[in-house]
Amino acid sequence: MGYKSDIEIAQECVMKPITEIAQEAGISEEYLECYGKYKAKISDKLMDHMDRPNGKLVLVTAINPTPAGEGKTTTSIGLIDALSRLGKHPVGALREPSMGPVFGVKGGAAGGGYAQVVPMEDINLHFTGDMHAIGAANNLLAAMVDNSIQQGNPLNIDPRKVVWKRCVDMNDRQLRNVIDGLGTKLDGTPREDGFDITVASEVMAAFCLAKDLKDLKERLSKIIVGYTYGKLVDEQPVTAGDLGAAGAMTAILKDAIKPNLVQTLEHTPVIIHGGPFANIAHGCNSVIATRTALKLGDYAVTEAGFGCDLGAEKFLDIKCRMSGLKPNAVVIVATVRALKYNGGVAKADLNNENLEALEKGLPNLLKHVSNIKDVYHLPCVVAINAFPTDTKAELDLVEAKCKEIGVNVCLSEVWAKGGEGGLALAEEVVRLCEEDNSAFEFSYGLEGTIEEKLNAIVQKVYGGARAELTSNAKNQAKKLTAMGYENVPICMAKTQYSLTDDPKKLGAPKDFVVTVRNLKISAGAGFIVALTGDIMTMPGLPKHPAAMDIDVDENGKITGLF
Amino acid sequence: MGYKSDIEIAQECVMKPITEIAQEAGISEEYLECYGKYKAKISDKLMDHMDRPNGKLVLVTAINPTPAGEGKTTTSIGLIDALSRLGKHPVGALREPSMGPVFGVKGGAAGGGYAQVVPMEDINLHFTGDMHAIGAANNLLAAMVDNSIQQGNPLNIDPRKVVWKRCVDMNDRQLRNVIDGLGTKLDGTPREDGFDITVASEVMAAFCLAKDLKDLKERLSKIIVGYTYGKLVDEQPVTAGDLGAAGAMTAILKDAIKPNLVQTLEHTPVIIHGGPFANIAHGCNSVIATRTALKLGDYAVTEAGFGCDLGAEKFLDIKCRMSGLKPNAVVIVATVRALKYNGGVAKADLNNENLEALEKGLPNLLKHVSNIKDVYHLPCVVAINAFPTDTKAELDLVEAKCKEIGVNVCLSEVWAKGGEGGLALAEEVVRLCEEDNSAFEFSYGLEGTIEEKLNAIVQKVYGGARAELTSNAKNQAKKLTAMGYENVPICMAKTQYSLTDDPKKLGAPKDFVVTVRNLKISAGAGFIVALTGDIMTMPGLPKHPAAMDIDVDENGKITGLF
Repeated sequence: MGYKSDIEIAQECVMKPITEIAQEAGISEEYLECYGKYKAKISDKLMDHMDRPNGKLVLVTAINPTPAGEGKTTTSIGLIDALSRLGKHPVGALREPSMGPVFGVKGGAAGGGYAQVVPMEDINLHFTGDMHAIGAANNLLAAMVDNSIQQGNPLNIDPRKVVWKRCVDMNDRQLRNVIDGLGTKLDGTPREDGFDITVASEVMAAFCLAKDLKDLKERLSKIIVGYTYGKLVDEQPVTAGDLGAAGAMTAILKDAIKPNLVQTLEHTPVIIHGGPFANIAHGCNSVIATRTALKLGDYAVTEAGFGCDLGAEKFLDIKCRMSGLKPNAVVIVATVRALKYNGGVAKADLNNENLEALEKGLPNLLKHVSNIKDVYHLPCVVAINAFPTDTKAELDLVEAKCKEIGVNVCLSEVWAKGGEGGLALAEEVVRLCEEDNSAFEFSYGLEGTIEEKLNAIVQKVYGGARAELTSNAKNQAKKLTAMGYENVPICMAKTQYSLTDDPKKLGAPKDFVVTVRNLKISAGAGFIVALTGDIMTMPGLPKHPAAMDIDVDENGKITGLF
Repeated sequence: MGYKSDIEIAQECVMKPITEIAQEAGISEEYLECYGKYKAKISDKLMDHMDRPNGKLVLVTAINPTPAGEGKTTTSIGLIDALSRLGKHPVGALREPSMGPVFGVKGGAAGGGYAQVVPMEDINLHFTGDMHAIGAANNLLAAMVDNSIQQGNPLNIDPRKVVWKRCVDMNDRQLRNVIDGLGTKLDGTPREDGFDITVASEVMAAFCLAKDLKDLKERLSKIIVGYTYGKLVDEQPVTAGDLGAAGAMTAILKDAIKPNLVQTLEHTPVIIHGGPFANIAHGCNSVIATRTALKLGDYAVTEAGFGCDLGAEKFLDIKCRMSGLKPNAVVIVATVRALKYNGGVAKADLNNENLEALEKGLPNLLKHVSNIKDVYHLPCVVAINAFPTDTKAELDLVEAKCKEIGVNVCLSEVWAKGGEGGLALAEEVVRLCEEDNSAFEFSYGLEGTIEEKLNAIVQKVYGGARAELTSNAKNQAKKLTAMGYENVPICMAKTQYSLTDDPKKLGAPKDFVVTVRNLKISAGAGFIVALTGDIMTMPGLPKHPAAMDIDVDENGKITGLF
C-alpha cells in the first residue's frame, strides 16, 4: 500500500463552507465576496473597519533549496494548523500559485500530505482569477506601448529600447525570444521582443507591495516601459503614466487586489494572495494579505520564496521596509536530507545515515540562522521537516549544533500528521513571540550608493567578500543614480541554490565575490533588480509535461494534479 | 443637459443580490456558485435535475450592420425586460463580452441606455474569468505543440505547418505576425507564428457548442494543431488528443463551462456565457447557456453576432443543428438610420428625413425577413430600434413594406425607456410563439459536397448566383473530403457589412458571386470555415484607445467605460 497522493488527500477533505471559515475568522458578511462555496475574496476595506490590535507575525523561510526538497509551504501550513490546535487563532498568508508550472514538472503549490490548503485544484488552476488579471494589466500596457509607436509615436519611444515584455501564465519557452510586429505597416513595428511568465511581471511585484488600490495606481503609473531615442545620457524613460495606461490597468485589477480566503485541511483560515517571482522580484505574498492576516489573527504565518538568503532577505529588507511590517519570530525549515546534500551526498544516497556529510552541510543552515539572529536581530527556530529515513543520531547532531548558537530545533511531522505533527514547532513559535526579544534591523540602509547596498547584502547576508560590478553594471548604476533611483532597496536576482552566485557552491562558502552583471529599475515595484547571471523568466515544459497526466471527469473531478 | 452615459445608468441601479435573482428564476441554492454578490455560476448539472418543459426560444438578429448602429443586444435586453413586465418569466441567454475591445473603440457590450445587464463593469472586465480560462486552455495546447517539437518531435510535426496559434484577450496588432522560438536551441524552434484575440480561438467555438464537460473534452481532443512532414497527400493531421492535451485543457475549463447568471437593470435573470467570433466561428453564446435559459424560463431570448446572413444563418444551421434547439420566433432589429445608410445616405446626413433613401435601403431588411420566413420557415417580427430623429413618414414606410410580406413591425424604445419601451415588441413575440406557426428547416443539408453546401448558403441566404472556389480552395475541399470532413456544417467567414463578399455593396444585391479563398477545418468545433477574404482575427487599438479614459477610484468605482 503506497502513500495517498496530495490530490487524493485534498479531495477526501470535507471542507467547511467558506462563509463559516470567514465567520470564525471574524470577517463580517459585508466584507466577504464568495467565489463558489469554498473560496472568497475579502474586501480590501475590511482593515479600515476592524478595531483590534494586530497579531504576531511569523515568517517561515528555509535553507538554500536542494533537489531533495525542503517543504517550506507544507511546514507553514502545518504550523498554522498546529497553532490552531493550541487555540491561538492563526491566519495564514501565503503566495498564490502560478498555473503554468502546474502543467510542467513542479506540480501544484498548495502544500503537501496532510498539510494542504483546499480546494487544492482550484488554488492551483486560476483560483479567483488574480493571475489572469495581472497578466491582462501587463498585456494592456504592452499593447498600448506598441500602439503608441504605431500611431505616430508621440512619446518618441525607441522601438529598440522597449523594456516592457508581454506575459502569459504558461511554461512556454517558444515565446522567450520573438520578433513581433511583422507583416505590413498596418501590423506594427518589427522589433525584438519576448514574453515572461506572468509571475515575473513587474505588475505582480507592484501589486504585492501596494498598500491599496490608490497606491497600486501610483506604482503602476511609475512603471518604465522603454526609453526615448537618443544616447544613454539624453534618453528619457517613458512610463505607463505617460501612456495614460495606469487607470485602465488598475481598473483591470480592482477585484484582484482583494485578498483570497481559503482553508487548510483542518479548516484553519488561510489568505492566499499574490505571488511574484523570487529572483527578479521579491517573492512574497501581497502586503494586503499579510496585513489582513495580522488584523484577523492572533498569529499571522507567512513565507517567502526560495531560501533565507533570497526570500527572507527580501521579505525583511524590501517588503517589511515598504510596508512597516515587523516579524516577531522566524522559522527556518531544513531537512536532514537537504543538509546531507549540502554536505556533498548524491541525491540517490540521501536515504543512508551519513553524519560526516551532515556535519559538512550544517553550516548552510547555521549561516541562515545566524543571519536571522545577528543581522536582523529576530528570534528564530529551526524546523526539521521529518523524513522516515532520518536517524536519531542525525537529528541529535542538528539539534546540538543549533543549540550551540542558542537556537532550538523542532521536528515537524506535518506532512504525515497535519497540525498534530507541528505542535512542538508551534509551541516554540509561541514562546518566541511571547518572549518578544526581537529588535528588528534591516541588513542595509537606503542611504549611500547602490554599490554600498550591494556590498552590505553580499557581506552580511551571503557571507561573501564583496559585490563586483561589471563595467556594464557600473554604467547602469551611474545612470540609475542620475535618474534619482539611488536610495531604493535592492532586489537580488541570484541563484537560489547557493549563498554565492554559483549554484554548485553548496554549504556556507566564504571570501567569495558576487558578480553583478545588470542593474534594472523596477520603478513601479520600487526597487533596483541586481542580476548576477542569466535569470530565467519564462520556464519551459519537460519531455513529459504534467499536463499529459491531468484529466477531469464528467463531474468536474480532477485527477493527475500533484 | 445631456444623456447619462451607460455606466452612469448602470451604477445608479440598485441591484438585487444574485441569490434572490436565482431563487426567482427557480435555481435552488445547491446549483448556484456565487462570484461576489451580483454574479453567479449555475451548475452545469442543473438541467439534469429540473423536471419542467422547455420554454419558447426567441432569436434576436439584425440587418447587416452599418456604422449607424442597430442595437441588437440592447433590443434583446429590453425585450427580456418587457416580457418580464408581461408576466412571461423570460430568461436571457447572451454572449460574454471580450475584454480586449473594451480598451479599443468598441467599448462595452452589455447593452445600452436603460436596457443593460449589470454589473456592467464586471461583465465587460474579466466577468467570472471564462475568457481567461479559454485563453489558458488555448495557450497550454500551443505550448505543448512547440514542446513536443522541441523534445524530439515524436509526432513528426512539421514546424512550417503548425496551424494552432496562441491567443490573448487584448487588441494587440503587434502580435498578429511574429517569429518565435528564437535564441539558442534551448529556446524552441524558430518559426512563423501569430496570435489571435481569445474569442477567435477554436477552443471558444468548441466550448460554445459543447453539450457538457465530456462532450467538450471530446471536441478539444479533435482539434487539429498542425500536420506532419510530407506532401499534401501524405501529411497527417496532428490533434490535441495526439499530444495528450485534452484532459488538462478540459480541467482548465471545468468552472468556465458553468453558465453565468446576472440581472438586467430591471432585475430580470440573464445568462451570459461564451462569445465566439462571428466570422471565423459561429458567433452565438454557449449551447449550455441557451439550454439552461430554456429550462428555467417560459421564454428564452438569445441573439447571434453580426447581421442575419451571418448570425442567424450560423445560429440556425450550425448551433441549432448540433444541439437540437429550435426557435419559436425570430426578431429582426433595424433602425431607420441604418436603412437609410443602406440606401446610400452618408453617415453625417442620417438625421434628415429621406424617404427615397429609406425605400432604397429597405430591401436589405426585407431580404433578411424573407430568409427567416421562407428559407427557415420561422415566424418573425421586425423591431425598429427608435431614434429621436425618426419621422412618422419613415416609420410608416417601413411598416407598410413589411406588412406587404406579412410581417409586423414594432417600435422598440428600450434604450430610452427600458422594458416599458419594449412592450409592443414583447406582445408580438408572445403572439408569434403562441400561434406556433414554425416549421423550422435548415438552409442546407449535410449530405452532398462542400461546394453544394456553399452554393446553398450563397443562393438561398445571401441571394447571390453561386459560390466560386479559388483553385486553392478547391484543393482544400478535396483534401478535407479525403480527410472525412465532407458532411459537416459550413461556417462562413464573410464581411458582415454586406450580403455579398464586398463590404461596399449595401442593400440587397442580386446575381453576385461569392469567392471562397480558403477552407479550413475546425475539427473541435465541428465545422468547416469558408473564408471569402482576409478575416481579421486580432484587432488593433485606435489612435486614442478607450483605455486612456478608463479609471478607477480608491473605492473600486470605475469611470470612463462606455
